[in-house]
Amino acid sequence: MGEFELIDRFFKRRTPASGAVALGIGDDCALLRPAPGMQIAISTDMLVEGRHFLPDVDPEHLGHKALAVNLSDLAAMGAEPLGCTLALALPPERARDAGWLTALARGLFALADAHACPLIGGDTTAGPLNLCLTVFGQVPAGQALRRDGAQAGDHIWVSGTLGHARLALGALRGEWTLPPAVLAAARQRLERPTPRLALGRALRGIAHSAIDVSDGLLGDLGHILKASGTGASIDAAAASRLLAAGAALDAETLRTAALAGGDDYELVFTAPPAARAAVLRAGHASATPVSRIGTITAGTGLRLLGADGQPLRQTYASFDHFARS
Amino acid sequence: MGEFELIDRFFKRRTPASGAVALGIGDDCALLRPAPGMQIAISTDMLVEGRHFLPDVDPEHLGHKALAVNLSDLAAMGAEPLGCTLALALPPERARDAGWLTALARGLFALADAHACPLIGGDTTAGPLNLCLTVFGQVPAGQALRRDGAQAGDHIWVSGTLGHARLALGALRGEWTLPPAVLAAARQRLERPTPRLALGRALRGIAHSAIDVSDGLLGDLGHILKASGTGASIDAAAASRLLAAGAALDAETLRTAALAGGDDYELVFTAPPAARAAVLRAGHASATPVSRIGTITAGTGLRLLGADGQPLRQTYASFDHFARS
Repeated sequence: MGEFELIDRFFKRRTPASGAVALGIGDDCALLRPAPGMQIAISTDMLVEGRHFLPDVDPEHLGHKALAVNLSDLAAMGAEPLGCTLALALPPERARDAGWLTALARGLFALADAHACPLIGGDTTAGPLNLCLTVFGQVPAGQALRRDGAQAGDHIWVSGTLGHARLALGALRGEWTLPPAVLAAARQRLERPTPRLALGRALRGIAHSAIDVSDGLLGDLGHILKASGTGASIDAAAASRLLAAGAALDAETLRTAALAGGDDYELVFTAPPAARAAVLRAGHASATPVSRIGTITAGTGLRLLGADGQPLRQTYASFDHFARS
Repeated sequence: MGEFELIDRFFKRRTPASGAVALGIGDDCALLRPAPGMQIAISTDMLVEGRHFLPDVDPEHLGHKALAVNLSDLAAMGAEPLGCTLALALPPERARDAGWLTALARGLFALADAHACPLIGGDTTAGPLNLCLTVFGQVPAGQALRRDGAQAGDHIWVSGTLGHARLALGALRGEWTLPPAVLAAARQRLERPTPRLALGRALRGIAHSAIDVSDGLLGDLGHILKASGTGASIDAAAASRLLAAGAALDAETLRTAALAGGDDYELVFTAPPAARAAVLRAGHASATPVSRIGTITAGTGLRLLGADGQPLRQTYASFDHFARS
């Protein structure tokens, strides 16, 4: 199968799902038609076999996740998806595997359709398996949720739950065992994360800052603190409660998974205390649980407080793609 | 060196080169501010070691080329660059090689600066060496140069020269030898292609269709013919004259390089006969040579005509990333 046949067969669709697409797959460039007054939000992520996914990954999950991690970045900016591109390097045995490619496309398109984010272009080549997704969204000028807007006194909130992806990864690696039902649920979080797009849009004009949790809560919150020039105190027990383990693991393992586990793709965001009711309404309107886990502080540094309100002494390292290599 | 330190050290610049960038590197998304009435043109290309470049490639040339091939797609649409993202998978020895990364960034930024196309975001990860560049441009709504606008009777034009990149590749592969000065000039075309952005913009409202020559003249022209539902006749001698070989290679080798050699990154475009003077003015205004090589015909099929006006019987296969794998 040639390069163009592969694109036609698995990835080209005649009708884009969104009126924002002026020209889709099949020319030198795709063309997007943003609404007046909108800025274009752009994020790109590269997924490498053996690092972001295992060789025996379910290709449908891989298609879902490759797009989900990018949509999560749009969510963290409060942007509405417009479209995406996929650049794909395939080893020869994958390029010949119609079943694998069909499943990859199915996972990608199912999530793309759910969020009106059509595939508008891309590239395919032979090479070690690598997926590079780039997503485009729009957000009214000046309303994007950025990392640099946190203010002392802001409450710190997290959507959904934390740490389940790390629990699943540890079980798959043999670090611990989980009851089958717990593993299945945790694995769903690892393999099919939910981008919090509706919540992100609902938080426009309410949140002062936001980021998505890809490398671990504390590390990603750290990016907000650095960009905003603030510190934070975190209620470790409140954050840990967002991990419903259902497993006989020790408390420190669970706390580490909740505070530093990667791949959650929840939003962590800050908002002034007076916006508490508005935050809860945004969560309700988007059918997304939101929980307060701490407070932005003046100065710098991140303090973890225990149940007694006293600082914890443990430190937690977030994921870094080169530090572990 | 960690992932974030690597980005900060080699790829993050404080001041974007363009007023169209509302937010650059350092948040979940970059934000572009298109001018009113503009559509956003998007192209992505993935470059894989061993396929698009050799392991001993000069990293400065690699940085140039990775961006150039994408800018060439903007040129082929008549779009003006706004910015680009770079997703980069690096093996551990490259991630530790400050000299290599500095040179890669130097090549990329030099071309980015020349075309006001700042790096606004990206991703880095460990993995087999892979560069995925995505570029963003803007073009007035309805004025993009597309593949599907060719009309019977249109003249077919090509910018610059053809086949030198293929000559250099053949020499590097040992298929033939070239005099040192000829090889140096041809290698420059292979390693540091020139995106024809000024010409593309000058052809708005003049050309009926356009594409850039990445896989070979005949193959890329074939995309125009397929999209437009037309045929073409090509003056093989006129096309071959665009290859100034200066080398003792047989005529058929040279013709193959000109007609089917990839990596030229020239524009092939069509325009009505009445636009002949306007095409020449666009070439002059953009300091880009343009040459007519044929005519769009009704019906389908691509006929190659010899110096005697009679059809040639040879066929020429353009590059396909999977057909050769």
